[in-house]
Amino acid sequence: MNNFETKEKYLTVLKGRSALPGGFKTAVQTFEFFPSEREVKEAVKMNIALIELEEPTEAFAGVFTANAFPGYPVEIGRDLLSEEKVSGVLINNKISNVRCANGRETALNITESLALGRQRKHPYFPSSTGIIGWKLPEKEMIENLKPLTEKLKSDQIFSAAQAIMTTDAFPKIRSMKFEGGSICAIAKGAGMIEPNMATMLVFILTDIDIKREELRAIFSPVIDRTFNRISIDSDQSTSDTALIFSSGLKPCSSVASFEAALQSICLSLSEDIVRNGEGTSHLIRVSVSEAETIDEATALGKALINSPLTKTAIFGNDPNVGRFLQAMGAYFGKNGVYINPEKVEISLGGHIVYKDGVFTLDEEKEKKISNYMKDCSFNNSEGFPPHERSVDLNVKLGRGACVSQVLGSDLTYDYLRENADYRT
Amino acid sequence: MNNFETKEKYLTVLKGRSALPGGFKTAVQTFEFFPSEREVKEAVKMNIALIELEEPTEAFAGVFTANAFPGYPVEIGRDLLSEEKVSGVLINNKISNVRCANGRETALNITESLALGRQRKHPYFPSSTGIIGWKLPEKEMIENLKPLTEKLKSDQIFSAAQAIMTTDAFPKIRSMKFEGGSICAIAKGAGMIEPNMATMLVFILTDIDIKREELRAIFSPVIDRTFNRISIDSDQSTSDTALIFSSGLKPCSSVASFEAALQSICLSLSEDIVRNGEGTSHLIRVSVSEAETIDEATALGKALINSPLTKTAIFGNDPNVGRFLQAMGAYFGKNGVYINPEKVEISLGGHIVYKDGVFTLDEEKEKKISNYMKDCSFNNSEGFPPHERSVDLNVKLGRGACVSQVLGSDLTYDYLRENADYRT
Repeated sequence: MNNFETKEKYLTVLKGRSALPGGFKTAVQTFEFFPSEREVKEAVKMNIALIELEEPTEAFAGVFTANAFPGYPVEIGRDLLSEEKVSGVLINNKISNVRCANGRETALNITESLALGRQRKHPYFPSSTGIIGWKLPEKEMIENLKPLTEKLKSDQIFSAAQAIMTTDAFPKIRSMKFEGGSICAIAKGAGMIEPNMATMLVFILTDIDIKREELRAIFSPVIDRTFNRISIDSDQSTSDTALIFSSGLKPCSSVASFEAALQSICLSLSEDIVRNGEGTSHLIRVSVSEAETIDEATALGKALINSPLTKTAIFGNDPNVGRFLQAMGAYFGKNGVYINPEKVEISLGGHIVYKDGVFTLDEEKEKKISNYMKDCSFNNSEGFPPHERSVDLNVKLGRGACVSQVLGSDLTYDYLRENADYRT
Repeated sequence: MNNFETKEKYLTVLKGRSALPGGFKTAVQTFEFFPSEREVKEAVKMNIALIELEEPTEAFAGVFTANAFPGYPVEIGRDLLSEEKVSGVLINNKISNVRCANGRETALNITESLALGRQRKHPYFPSSTGIIGWKLPEKEMIENLKPLTEKLKSDQIFSAAQAIMTTDAFPKIRSMKFEGGSICAIAKGAGMIEPNMATMLVFILTDIDIKREELRAIFSPVIDRTFNRISIDSDQSTSDTALIFSSGLKPCSSVASFEAALQSICLSLSEDIVRNGEGTSHLIRVSVSEAETIDEATALGKALINSPLTKTAIFGNDPNVGRFLQAMGAYFGKNGVYINPEKVEISLGGHIVYKDGVFTLDEEKEKKISNYMKDCSFNNSEGFPPHERSVDLNVKLGRGACVSQVLGSDLTYDYLRENADYRT
């Protein structure tokens, strides 16, 4: 567990994670444009980032938002999954390309123009994050493709991780050596911050040779066990996207080991996302065990972590176990599940607070737990996470043998400030 | 729609609603006690309120929380539904009697002592609201039953409505003449305020002669269409209770008309509950129409109203329709329902903000809607609701002919202050 003392130290750690796996190049370009949507014209800055495979690959997989009103890049991305090979992904921040006129055509024009310029017959994924409802500046984006591609280099992913940020507090990168190669992943988001730019984007690159079918078989379950178990404000963006590409340069001795490594990277990155929320002051880790099914454990964990009463108690460093019990009872009641209150056990930071049907808090224990919660709190407004501690809430249900872990954030004044005032 | 200018004016309106239907008496008693749970002993004030039928009645019905960890009064209340007749209900504030040792016995000892003192062979419902986990002061409560019952009077319900408050901003009373008699209802709660005292209690009295079976047949559906369609912070208390009693003194010409009157009272009272939240600055009324089923319309309405992004947008007087669309899309996506984005229409305060698949906001419309939202905002910290205006969000789904309306509140700094800081 890292304890970052300064922003410099955090960025140094990130740069140490930034080496690209073999077979990839990246580049970033920044430019200004005048959005047609505003009467008062003010120049707006946009970053475009390109992640390109040196050779088009057929080993790629994607998982997209389940939101019923997806953005155009998500619609196009789903179509591209059936392509024989792809060349990479072009990402822009500032505008998400959701629900505006001709958004699909615009996205296709830009990525097709990129393929043409690069003389590639295999397409690039488009990926956009930012304001919902505005149009992409098609002309300016196309004009900037040439200077962008002239900068392509195979050294690091740090600049791309920075370029895809919208209101993220800090860039997020995780990487890992694996056998003779590596896995490297970047992310932006999520919901905590500015909901019009709430998209979670995850891009994972590896040179480990995993076949397309194997990659697709493991990618969805891994996403399901990691990014789908974080919950910041219970909304799912219209543009959430996770893509993985393999350049296939290094042999793989065991797909199961690769899956484990991938899961570990995705878990760390999903923690980074929760920790990144500008308003977040606690990372909450809810572990539910002794459930009948994994789905039950996950759903209860999410019910707990999405309860405003849980969130505000933890924000206030208040071991208010009555609220946890209430949230759990509401979940089971709503789903018509009988649960024996005598068999439930709840602990917070290792201290048992509810057991054998009654609360087991006294003033001394309350004080200890409150201090523990204070110790886990943080403020990342300086643009880096000061530490990686979390508030651990463990629930045993006494119903079965299934386990799940869910990550969430507290509910703070800064969250409200970000979300209520951002356009006024 | 009322526009209350001063607290005095509000209380005058309430007193005008306070006449008891025939056949009922009420009384209130206040006393102090020393809770055994705290090391530093400080006297705590408790109110007990009694609603008594002059003659025990068999025409009564109750609806209780679906929370899987219900309080002892809820457990006892469920049992009492099978009693031939009941004598009334004894309510206390300050302690909710949930999950503490011998809570059931304590509640029964107190109400049985009351029945004995009143020489009644038919029992009283116990009803408690307040801190979870503490024990009821059984001895002091029993000692205060005699002075309580000596005050029983058949004039008004205003004192009882005040006595059952915990951190409610103001008492809540609704009443209505019906044929030769009347219906009168009081409520306390709900969740917005102080979650350990979050319970919603509703007591409805009438002298209209509705038979037990008829009353039970209409009561649950009415509660379902009113109190179960408000959502403040998506949690359901361990103690939520709604009880209705008829003294049967006045004839009823039509049960259907009575049901309509009862629904109207419950709807107004449920609005009062949402408006009452100390942190609430907007009452939000979401109407979903053209849904396939009523359940779908209600669930989507709740998903919208429970979305922190909807709540914070409305708090900020921000017509941020991207968030509404996102919350709706997340709901449908999660439930695997296909929805055609082209057929959806969203309007806010009568202004269409999304239609034919695209946003229809411009800067002028945004300004108008923002002003409308400001005009609907309020501050009830003076202990009365200044007006009864609401932010109306209407969604047409283009899928069917079903309609539902859901009420909710925004998410404010005051909400956080109440919920994060109350025990520190």
